[in-house]
Amino acid sequence: MFKIRKIITISDYVTAINIILGLCAIIFHDFRFIYASIVFDALDGFVARKTNTVSDFGAELDSICDVVSFGVAPAYLLYYYFNSPFVLVASLIFLVCGAFRLARFGVLDVKYFIGLPIPAGALILAIICEFFINYNNYIVNYGISENIINIVVSILGVIFGVLMISDISYPKYPNKIMMGIFGVSLILSMFGIFEPLGICAVCYVIYGLFKNENVQ
Amino acid sequence: MFKIRKIITISDYVTAINIILGLCAIIFHDFRFIYASIVFDALDGFVARKTNTVSDFGAELDSICDVVSFGVAPAYLLYYYFNSPFVLVASLIFLVCGAFRLARFGVLDVKYFIGLPIPAGALILAIICEFFINYNNYIVNYGISENIINIVVSILGVIFGVLMISDISYPKYPNKIMMGIFGVSLILSMFGIFEPLGICAVCYVIYGLFKNENVQ
Repeated sequence: MFKIRKIITISDYVTAINIILGLCAIIFHDFRFIYASIVFDALDGFVARKTNTVSDFGAELDSICDVVSFGVAPAYLLYYYFNSPFVLVASLIFLVCGAFRLARFGVLDVKYFIGLPIPAGALILAIICEFFINYNNYIVNYGISENIINIVVSILGVIFGVLMISDISYPKYPNKIMMGIFGVSLILSMFGIFEPLGICAVCYVIYGLFKNENVQ
Repeated sequence: MFKIRKIITISDYVTAINIILGLCAIIFHDFRFIYASIVFDALDGFVARKTNTVSDFGAELDSICDVVSFGVAPAYLLYYYFNSPFVLVASLIFLVCGAFRLARFGVLDVKYFIGLPIPAGALILAIICEFFINYNNYIVNYGISENIINIVVSILGVIFGVLMISDISYPKYPNKIMMGIFGVSLILSMFGIFEPLGICAVCYVIYGLFKNENVQ
């Protein structure tokens, strides 16, 4: 009756937590679920390799869950917090680019990432949203209207979308020091201190742009 | 810079409309976007076959878009309209089952569907939500409380989720008469007349249960 149990491994249940967190981000309008998804997205691959359960099913499931946590969730929250027609278009472009990025990743087999990985795209978009939400009063005090903020987040959303479908190569596994800094930043973001995570995300995006080798 | 253009075909752009409609269903809290997604989900396969552009990339993209329109959108709308802890659990179960269903479909190559297809699962869940939203006053007049309605939709959500990951076989291409009836019902649903589409969905679900061959 449920032969699917035979192909679902422990790492696939970890992937399932990823998609659950993605839906929670949408339902509770909270970016922290996206940050938590990044942990489980990294963890499922680690568990699959450690338990020797890497499978086509797991890879498929990974893409399916990633589009929810790192495509739909940030795109929806972008529109939810910066409600305007510009932002709607940017949200849709970001999501479509994310879907194309994931589908390409599913059919290519390379040692580096081609195009900004979707978790990084989601992360930087989420951080930028948090920045504009948290510092909204300061920004408006400088005479920058809500309309301009909406246009800025829309343009950034489109840029990150386009980076995802570009040919710019990004490193797959950063070194341990970087991983440590990223891990600490991720923990801090759970307590509302999102700035260090933002710096990590911006550094990663810029790193790819500067060492661009334009490969495919 | 954008070599991805070489692998994206016309049918993939049709698939992209599917995911756009899925996000619109979430943003505008409207089930009709899910019904429209079903049209584009059928159309992309048709276009790919007619233009001889069936590809691994297209198949990957299809699963990635389907989880949004037929997994996240109905799960989110279920919780949005029937806000309760039971419903939240049911929404998450429905989405996880949908993701497992899509991942299994991606790795199997069979002539029939194994488990209720996710568009059918999304369709029947959406119709049931619409039924309880539209007939809420009548139902409450019969002494059935909102709490009971929430429990009923939760149970049905879980049942459709479980049917998706079951081994029950469903026909892949119904005959032309059935397709015609379904098409007319789909058009009517766009104008708020969702009952014929509901009957089609219920018949399809029950058909699979009765002709069950338990295959995989």
